[in-house]
Amino acid sequence: MTAHPAHASGTIGDTGEFDLIERIVAPAAQGPAVGLGPGDDAAVVRLAGPDLVITTDVLVEGVHFRRTWSQAADIGRKTVAVNVADVEAMGARPVGVVVALAAPADLPTSWLDELADGIRTECTTAGVSLVGGDLSAAPQVVLTATAFGDLDGRAPVTRTGARPGDVVAIRGRLGWAAAGLAALGRGFRSPRAAVEAQRVPQVPYGAGALAAAAGASAMIDVSDGLLADVGHIAAGSGVVCDLRSEAFPVPDPVAAVASATGADPLALILCGGEDHALAATFAAGDVPKDWWVVGEVRTGEPGVLVDGAAWEGEAGFRHFGH
Amino acid sequence: MTAHPAHASGTIGDTGEFDLIERIVAPAAQGPAVGLGPGDDAAVVRLAGPDLVITTDVLVEGVHFRRTWSQAADIGRKTVAVNVADVEAMGARPVGVVVALAAPADLPTSWLDELADGIRTECTTAGVSLVGGDLSAAPQVVLTATAFGDLDGRAPVTRTGARPGDVVAIRGRLGWAAAGLAALGRGFRSPRAAVEAQRVPQVPYGAGALAAAAGASAMIDVSDGLLADVGHIAAGSGVVCDLRSEAFPVPDPVAAVASATGADPLALILCGGEDHALAATFAAGDVPKDWWVVGEVRTGEPGVLVDGAAWEGEAGFRHFGH
Repeated sequence: MTAHPAHASGTIGDTGEFDLIERIVAPAAQGPAVGLGPGDDAAVVRLAGPDLVITTDVLVEGVHFRRTWSQAADIGRKTVAVNVADVEAMGARPVGVVVALAAPADLPTSWLDELADGIRTECTTAGVSLVGGDLSAAPQVVLTATAFGDLDGRAPVTRTGARPGDVVAIRGRLGWAAAGLAALGRGFRSPRAAVEAQRVPQVPYGAGALAAAAGASAMIDVSDGLLADVGHIAAGSGVVCDLRSEAFPVPDPVAAVASATGADPLALILCGGEDHALAATFAAGDVPKDWWVVGEVRTGEPGVLVDGAAWEGEAGFRHFGH
Repeated sequence: MTAHPAHASGTIGDTGEFDLIERIVAPAAQGPAVGLGPGDDAAVVRLAGPDLVITTDVLVEGVHFRRTWSQAADIGRKTVAVNVADVEAMGARPVGVVVALAAPADLPTSWLDELADGIRTECTTAGVSLVGGDLSAAPQVVLTATAFGDLDGRAPVTRTGARPGDVVAIRGRLGWAAAGLAALGRGFRSPRAAVEAQRVPQVPYGAGALAAAAGASAMIDVSDGLLADVGHIAAGSGVVCDLRSEAFPVPDPVAAVASATGADPLALILCGGEDHALAATFAAGDVPKDWWVVGEVRTGEPGVLVDGAAWEGEAGFRHFGH
């Protein structure tokens, strides 16, 4: 895009690339680890421990969000949240993010400003600094964030460390985003809590590092649904993860959507994605407070079971592009 | 995209997301700093010094590349190169990259395989590890890479440290990519060296850390054109950077394109972007070998001059989306 002066009421095509990047990143507060924030060729961040954790996720308009379903601020928040959740799942302390935006030239500048507000809001909530960004023209909105964190000298918590005798525990929400997606897909805007959960996940920030310090043997971000993601722990660790269906209380908004749509609420909880809870395995005495135990780890053909058997209910409540 | 078995001759829409990410990242060689490569929630990388350098850049089909002008492998190489160049420009040692790809479902899997080959090839050339990735459906190809590096205990070289009395020096190519773009834009496929330079920049890998060790006072990646980028050093440092036009030999491919198109070869050299040379300032005795001196730093109203005067020639040889 060519460099014209910015107009508050204009489109991003009227505004210079540098101005736009500046609008997004300049107001971002920088944490004490940031030696050099946005504005140079790259940011400089000081780590406390030697080990960096790093992950990237891309969100595409029409696949991961719709501009008609989500406010720009919520899309910005979600972009940060889904990335930082992966840093949490390694047992690391999230430190920073960089965000690259590709967007149509006719996008209103006000939409970009709201997106940037959301990015900065979620960075504050997550305790991370927005240290850099990039911007390009594109036919539709594509947002890519890369989040990084500091293991503070601890070992990472991978998917491969679950041991027979451990318990499986959860921190965060399950089924809420899937319930929201089901409601939105039928043209409803309620239950409000479920719809909001679909727009912005409530990541249990800080829980990953605390779980690591408590001795979590394996951990994963629940993005694709609990059965799928605990399945990665089971496969990676060579164990059976046997979940107890009665360990999952049905949250009110999930119950309401299940009732209205005829869906099985347990299926929404076990198979719904995009809530970004943490699932981890611990020795029975090590489970931190605020986590709830939902099953146990034992030997056997690697896989995930529900009440001792393979899940045969509904499956697949992923985002609408899949 | 739904998870079907991969077919060598199919499209990426026929292939599962996990299979595709695996195809890109699994064959990547991991350097000794990588504690955990792709496959978990995030990668783990050990730094030698406390300070991380990190930067992100997005490349969009139709803006930064065209599938009809560039092979997939070249697009993959360029994605890595333009990002790692920013790490070099901070004086850091590049360590790793993560790459997020959004692409149409009808993209041939063979195109993705070639792209991944290119990404891995350039990682090897740059001496970095491909430690993670993400993949999503999208109407056109959008590639976002985030590169990071290790300052190895050194201070970063920013844009703000140039001092009156320093010299301005260059390492790398100038004008080649712009000449290639001008040729391609008129339907030519030659001069081959210029066209290849437009497709994949030859970043002077390793030169950034060596310049920092030699005492560079300021440094920048030349992505938008030498005058624009040295202008950032001048503005950031509050100095005049006065370049000497006779310090710029005209490379043969640049001369050939200038002659064929009527362009001023010096304008291609001073204003052409996308070659990703490094421009830096040094005390006169500190210039490392393989750098060439093109001007001097002095006091005055901050800005960049050519032969003591503002540049009034042609300007603007950026990528075709701008």
